[in-house]
Amino acid sequence: MEVRDEKLERETEHQMRVMLKGAVEVVGAEELRVKVEQSIRTGEPLRVKFGMDPSAPDIHLGHAVVLRKLKQMQDMGHRIMVVIGDVTARIGDPTGKSKGRKALSDKEVMENAQTYLEQIFQIMDREKTEVYYNGEWLELLKLEEILHLASTVTVARLLERDDFQNRYKNNVPIGLHEFFYPLMQAYDSVAIGADIELGGTDQTFNILMGRNLQKSQGLSPQAAIFMPLLVGLDGVEKMSKSLNNYIGVKEDAKVMFKKVMEVPDALIIRYFELATDEMPERIDVIKEELASGKNPRDVKLELAEIITGLYHGKEETERARNYYQEAFGRKENPEDVPDLEIPWECSTLRSLLPIAAAAGLGFSSSELRRITSQGGVRINGTRADSLEVQVADGDVLKIGKKHFLKLRKTP
Amino acid sequence: MEVRDEKLERETEHQMRVMLKGAVEVVGAEELRVKVEQSIRTGEPLRVKFGMDPSAPDIHLGHAVVLRKLKQMQDMGHRIMVVIGDVTARIGDPTGKSKGRKALSDKEVMENAQTYLEQIFQIMDREKTEVYYNGEWLELLKLEEILHLASTVTVARLLERDDFQNRYKNNVPIGLHEFFYPLMQAYDSVAIGADIELGGTDQTFNILMGRNLQKSQGLSPQAAIFMPLLVGLDGVEKMSKSLNNYIGVKEDAKVMFKKVMEVPDALIIRYFELATDEMPERIDVIKEELASGKNPRDVKLELAEIITGLYHGKEETERARNYYQEAFGRKENPEDVPDLEIPWECSTLRSLLPIAAAAGLGFSSSELRRITSQGGVRINGTRADSLEVQVADGDVLKIGKKHFLKLRKTP
Repeated sequence: MEVRDEKLERETEHQMRVMLKGAVEVVGAEELRVKVEQSIRTGEPLRVKFGMDPSAPDIHLGHAVVLRKLKQMQDMGHRIMVVIGDVTARIGDPTGKSKGRKALSDKEVMENAQTYLEQIFQIMDREKTEVYYNGEWLELLKLEEILHLASTVTVARLLERDDFQNRYKNNVPIGLHEFFYPLMQAYDSVAIGADIELGGTDQTFNILMGRNLQKSQGLSPQAAIFMPLLVGLDGVEKMSKSLNNYIGVKEDAKVMFKKVMEVPDALIIRYFELATDEMPERIDVIKEELASGKNPRDVKLELAEIITGLYHGKEETERARNYYQEAFGRKENPEDVPDLEIPWECSTLRSLLPIAAAAGLGFSSSELRRITSQGGVRINGTRADSLEVQVADGDVLKIGKKHFLKLRKTP
Repeated sequence: MEVRDEKLERETEHQMRVMLKGAVEVVGAEELRVKVEQSIRTGEPLRVKFGMDPSAPDIHLGHAVVLRKLKQMQDMGHRIMVVIGDVTARIGDPTGKSKGRKALSDKEVMENAQTYLEQIFQIMDREKTEVYYNGEWLELLKLEEILHLASTVTVARLLERDDFQNRYKNNVPIGLHEFFYPLMQAYDSVAIGADIELGGTDQTFNILMGRNLQKSQGLSPQAAIFMPLLVGLDGVEKMSKSLNNYIGVKEDAKVMFKKVMEVPDALIIRYFELATDEMPERIDVIKEELASGKNPRDVKLELAEIITGLYHGKEETERARNYYQEAFGRKENPEDVPDLEIPWECSTLRSLLPIAAAAGLGFSSSELRRITSQGGVRINGTRADSLEVQVADGDVLKIGKKHFLKLRKTP
């Protein structure tokens, strides 16, 4: 008996470590431990909720932080229940005040949801993921039930939510229907009997409301695990497409590999925690290596290989690594390449050329465009076949036979 | 044609005067005039909404202010639509925070509504009154419709309502469901297509919300007529049973007559406006008479006769008047009766006796009780046959053969 208990404890400890790896906060940690232990003992998987709005963005590593964690839970045998907020999406913002919240048709909702699901299944195991649309239960609610639901929360509590508080203070109208959205999300937790809900820190309020609603209905409250926002390649802002400091999960293996190599050294461990499925024990080892003087570039090569490997095959990753090392090896490029400072927003060759023209090489913008169209411009040794070729920090630009510039993006 | 238009104008003017007689405020007066004119021209009655909570209080003249106005509209041919908030009553306050808002069963709601209706039909014409339960339409609403409804109002606007504002400021919880109650009342106006809604000034917020909701749905907005709270017999506080400054509509004709005679002189016109169906023109005449020195006591005799006549037959009213004049004539009572000051709350002989005992007549409380039980106490000349006999300001108390006291209630 004692031996088995020890094993149970070890396994519980392991699952807890994986679940909380990189998390900013967990609410209900003690309850979570009990749930995990019980799940291991009985073999009954935990029900892990992930709510999503079918607004279908292109997924990047920032979005993937939560999805990877779900994948890790899936790997430990738990049930992932994705809840798509189709009701919310179909209603949108009837006041028309918020552009992002326009009402979608049934068809649009389904299409958006499909696009989004396709993307998340690049990370999670499709076979082991259950997908729900919350209209299934929300549309069955009668007025009396809705009012009962509403009675479980106070106006003051809702006004504490940061965005509501700010809008209220600044006299930006809040429609009464908006107060319902968190409540509906909370009810989703009741409807599917969630044991755990996972989300970004921006979801704190809604996820905790789910927990409270479960309690108020006499149910075991879900543990809430909050994942941080991933800082982007600029090392400052959260990863976002509009800031162009992102790594998209659909990016070409070479681009992805190269971008990971641009991660600031200070963020290496964070990326291991949030953007890979590496076990906490392994990450501890890497931390120690870095602390005892290992070259961050070598650690990043490993990170780039792991991350690229998650989204591309082993072979492609191998190729991307070789390409990277070749391009940034010293074969093609001379040792001392002058830097060309370009702003972060500058992401294509086209946007870069006017800056290069100003660098004193003697080419005008239009000459540079012509040279490009004639195949006379290379990036990291590869011929740039259009003006739309992507460029990144650290890329080496070769113009004609003898002019080299190393791109230095400035935040 | 011109002659007919003049008649239309005169009739419109008359109806407007009746509708607005005694009102504190009307919102949408211009629209109201158009509606009234149209109604007179087409013969189509206006739809007048009156919302009520089936909480069944005993009705007094304070409650009757709005009901009398409805009766007057009824007399002009308009449709009175009483909307009973059965949904609200059945839901109550699920938080259990408010005692007054406990959830009622279907049966209780129906019973309460019945009791209340019986009372209002002492004032209004039962045959010409339509009764609705708002569950009829509210229970058909789907989540999406409810949320659309909610989107028509902002949180800030709701928080402006006095009671919400006070509670929010003083950290007294407001359940989110409470924000729905005004909205549901507002929706009632849409559902029945109200042209006019009538209510006390405490209903301002809700009634105006109905108006706005109609507008936002592209409907002609209801005119809102707000009636003041009737000041009670103490001349200070609003009429209320708990302050014992009220005249109940079910009170005995003699009591009612006598109580009207206690109305402070300054309130005579107000009572004519709010507690009788007298036409504005008639009230103008009375105003003038008072201004030119007519004895207020004589005007009050007329008021008492009119009010008593509204709730009792002509004969009974006659008898009440004679009784009053006899009791307060000089037959039985000596000219100079000393005053006995008693507090307003003091409404029965029982509660009065300890004070009378202290008045220096030489009777103890228990002696006074004995004398009463032996038939030795008279009020306004009538033998007090129990300790529960009601007493009022101005009553003359006779103890034994020779002791007289005139009761003076002090606020």
